[in-house]
Amino acid sequence: MQSITENIPGYAYGKATVAPSNVSLAELESLKTSAGFTEQDWQFLRLAGEVLADQTEKIVNQWRSGIIASIPHLARHSRTPEGDPIPEYLAKSNLRFQQWILDTCTRPYDQDWLNYQQEIAIRHTAVKKNQTDDVNSTSQVPLSDIIAFVAVMNETIKPYFAAKGHSAADVERMHLAWCKSMQLQMALWVPAYMDANRNSNHA
Amino acid sequence: MQSITENIPGYAYGKATVAPSNVSLAELESLKTSAGFTEQDWQFLRLAGEVLADQTEKIVNQWRSGIIASIPHLARHSRTPEGDPIPEYLAKSNLRFQQWILDTCTRPYDQDWLNYQQEIAIRHTAVKKNQTDDVNSTSQVPLSDIIAFVAVMNETIKPYFAAKGHSAADVERMHLAWCKSMQLQMALWVPAYMDANRNSNHA
Ligand code: HEM
Ligand code: HEM
Repeated sequence: MQSITENIPGYAYGKATVAPSNVSLAELESLKTSAGFTEQDWQFLRLAGEVLADQTEKIVNQWRSGIIASIPHLARHSRTPEGDPIPEYLAKSNLRFQQWILDTCTRPYDQDWLNYQQEIAIRHTAVKKNQTDDVNSTSQVPLSDIIAFVAVMNETIKPYFAAKGHSAADVERMHLAWCKSMQLQMALWVPAYMDANRNSNHA
Repeated sequence: MQSITENIPGYAYGKATVAPSNVSLAELESLKTSAGFTEQDWQFLRLAGEVLADQTEKIVNQWRSGIIASIPHLARHSRTPEGDPIPEYLAKSNLRFQQWILDTCTRPYDQDWLNYQQEIAIRHTAVKKNQTDDVNSTSQVPLSDIIAFVAVMNETIKPYFAAKGHSAADVERMHLAWCKSMQLQMALWVPAYMDANRNSNHA
């Protein structure tokens, strides 16, 4: 597999500590059909992985320091309840976020990937947020904000696909494949949030 | 307002029969910020409305007859439990779907729009699916499939933005604004599904 750096604190892809997904591989297949994935999309996700490999730090910084940090209702999720920054929390989760860009583009979407989708989702919910980095912050990132923010991620990642001299048509194809993966991943986060919210009053 | 035809069965936008949204206007503002809406996006949504106005029938036919109809796990939601077609159900909900394209592009995103988002969402859930057209079909369209299918809608609508001779750059801007609206709308459907699922065992 492709890795952004040797040791990523809290990154547990493929490890036995990651619970099996409540979504089955058969359901994943159905969702891939619903999202319209084609063989071409898989090829262009792989190409996107090559193109983004040395840009993940810039991208994640743009998203988290450049955009989220200046939107109070989003920034608070990486801060203490009093609103103070928690630099280690941001630094460590930024590394995992960077690795996720590569995983999105280069991993086979198999059982391990499915399990880790659920893990990433619940790390945004009251079930597991803050635990990986042992911090004191908001208890949950609302799923609605996450789905809305995907629009920003999709918009702002596009120039990075163009940064290595690929044709406009190939940039479009990489972006299309990326956008499909985002919808698929959001679709997979839904049941994790449903479960997290069933026994709580969080939105 | 712009209307695709004079009388749309079951279309209740702005009517007193539509329940007030559980999402407040302040929360809608936050979500618009999360999705990165700019003044330019609103302008290009309006332009998209002009461009799509006489193409809504073709678009909805492509989505529902051209794509969904050939995907069994999606097609069943417009059929009887035995899998038989229900032509009136498809025809009537197609008209409302067409009108929704125009509403997405031309309506102000105000209290009426917010309320009708919730209404459209619950018409996909066990709370209200099938009631508007008084039919016997599946009880709920899973939110995961809906979020995944947005990728297909975003992909396939793009050529329609280009059908009236606008520059490639303007087509991109219309598409970007459309995609932001889709994420915003999906974000708004989440709480409706959370509520629908809280007291049921539907996914
Ligand atoms: C409203 C926008 C978002 C906010 C405020 C946000 C916030 C956060 C926070 C606070 C963490 C650390 C979680 C923890 O305590 O373990 C995190 C981790 C992460 N986020 Fe998000 N997130 C947002 C949207 C997204 C989206 C749309 C994606 C991808 C589709 C994403 C992917 C990730 C990944 C991959 C990690 C690392 C997972 C891990 O902790 O191992 N986030 N995010
Ligand atoms: C998995 C994909 C989808 C399926 C199978 C599906 C199915 C349906 C069905 C069965 C109805 C009739 C609902 C009723 O009984 O009243 C309907 C209506 C509608 N759908 Fe969907 N839908 C899907 C995705 C979407 C998406 C992504 C949107 C927009 C973001 C959307 C917008 C609408 C609208 C505007 C209507 C008319 C609402 C009304 O009934 O007044 N649908 N859909």
